[in-house]
Amino acid sequence: MFYAPDIATTLTLPEQESQHAVRVLRLAAGDALQVIDGRGNLYDCHIVTAHQKRCAVAIDGITPMPTHWRHNITVAIAPTKLMDRLEWAVEKMVEMGVDRIVPILTDHSERRALKTERLHRIAVAAIKQSLKAVLPVIAPLTPMADFVAGDNNAQRFIAYCDPALPRDERQLLAGTYDAGTDVTILIGPEGDFSPDEVTAALAAGYRPVSLGDSRLRTETAAVKAVAAIHTIDERVRVLK
Amino acid sequence: MFYAPDIATTLTLPEQESQHAVRVLRLAAGDALQVIDGRGNLYDCHIVTAHQKRCAVAIDGITPMPTHWRHNITVAIAPTKLMDRLEWAVEKMVEMGVDRIVPILTDHSERRALKTERLHRIAVAAIKQSLKAVLPVIAPLTPMADFVAGDNNAQRFIAYCDPALPRDERQLLAGTYDAGTDVTILIGPEGDFSPDEVTAALAAGYRPVSLGDSRLRTETAAVKAVAAIHTIDERVRVLK
Repeated sequence: MFYAPDIATTLTLPEQESQHAVRVLRLAAGDALQVIDGRGNLYDCHIVTAHQKRCAVAIDGITPMPTHWRHNITVAIAPTKLMDRLEWAVEKMVEMGVDRIVPILTDHSERRALKTERLHRIAVAAIKQSLKAVLPVIAPLTPMADFVAGDNNAQRFIAYCDPALPRDERQLLAGTYDAGTDVTILIGPEGDFSPDEVTAALAAGYRPVSLGDSRLRTETAAVKAVAAIHTIDERVRVLK
Repeated sequence: MFYAPDIATTLTLPEQESQHAVRVLRLAAGDALQVIDGRGNLYDCHIVTAHQKRCAVAIDGITPMPTHWRHNITVAIAPTKLMDRLEWAVEKMVEMGVDRIVPILTDHSERRALKTERLHRIAVAAIKQSLKAVLPVIAPLTPMADFVAGDNNAQRFIAYCDPALPRDERQLLAGTYDAGTDVTILIGPEGDFSPDEVTAALAAGYRPVSLGDSRLRTETAAVKAVAAIHTIDERVRVLK
């Protein structure tokens, strides 16, 4: 499967994809290939000119391939100190299914800057690998307050584990998530959210949740949250 | 938190843990520390002799710390071609909570041999990180048929995605898993299980399941399965 966001207008694969098709896979003129545009379309194509940098194709058919879930799933996550942990969280969330990943800058974030190009490439590889045609949005690093102010999903949760933070009304995401409804979950940094951040999120309408009885690393919490959302959607679909 | 399986009898930390306590953390005689034995006990200790290789401690108190789930969760997984993928699956499954991880040798396994020492170390680090006192069993590489023959968990599932394999009666794990009951799930290799393996597993009483509508990598499938089991346990606990 190849990724070419402008395939419908350019009828050409991007350089990297052209190289992969022609140099690596040795595809030649006339060979069939499938292309996704990252916006939910799968194109059945065949190669017209097997150029190693600008492989030209003809489109034989277009199949709409929307996400297999129908609501918006947004994860706002504080980048981990070690990039590879954030990178695999992105890979796994995209494999399982997510619409938007927003790296957030928090009071306790050790990482104050973030390049998202690599995360974008990981997301592209992950949708190809998991046979999706919709590329999730990888937002730039955003101050948490700005994200919270602009987030309008119907269900908004903030996950944290620090016992010093307000717990009384904190519930399990697994018990409170309403299947099939637009959802946002905030995942804090290694040092967790600050009390001020939790207070501000609750004031903005976020509900405090726990992801279970295990203390999870930041990247594990994000993956557990996305897995839980899909699991509950699947269970409700089957049991209803 | 320190790991010392024989702490109760030796009153001494293993060499690596002694080094970490004395050389890295600079703990001295009289300093308090917490030790887990991997069998569900948390020991409150203080250092008697701050030796860099054989740190001697005295036990001030013992607290039983069973797993936060009460049933057996076993994952039998075909090792991935790239070891780091299996390694992070082990780390994440242990963080979320699992009792036994059994690497299985399957018809399509690219990896025919496996050293488990490193997986053991990763599991130890993961229980410390997620504050658990029970170390999951990391079994040696086992032929799938031998594992299937000896597995007596009440619920036994086999997850696969190959469309060529029997699908009709295949259901979503999220819809069929019975919360709180001993469960085993088989996760296949990159090339999936062979038709013979699926047939044999079904004959042995395994139920074919899907982990959702996304095609997941082997390591992602294992993590999704463990996350789904805990999510359903949590949801049933809350909603009942």
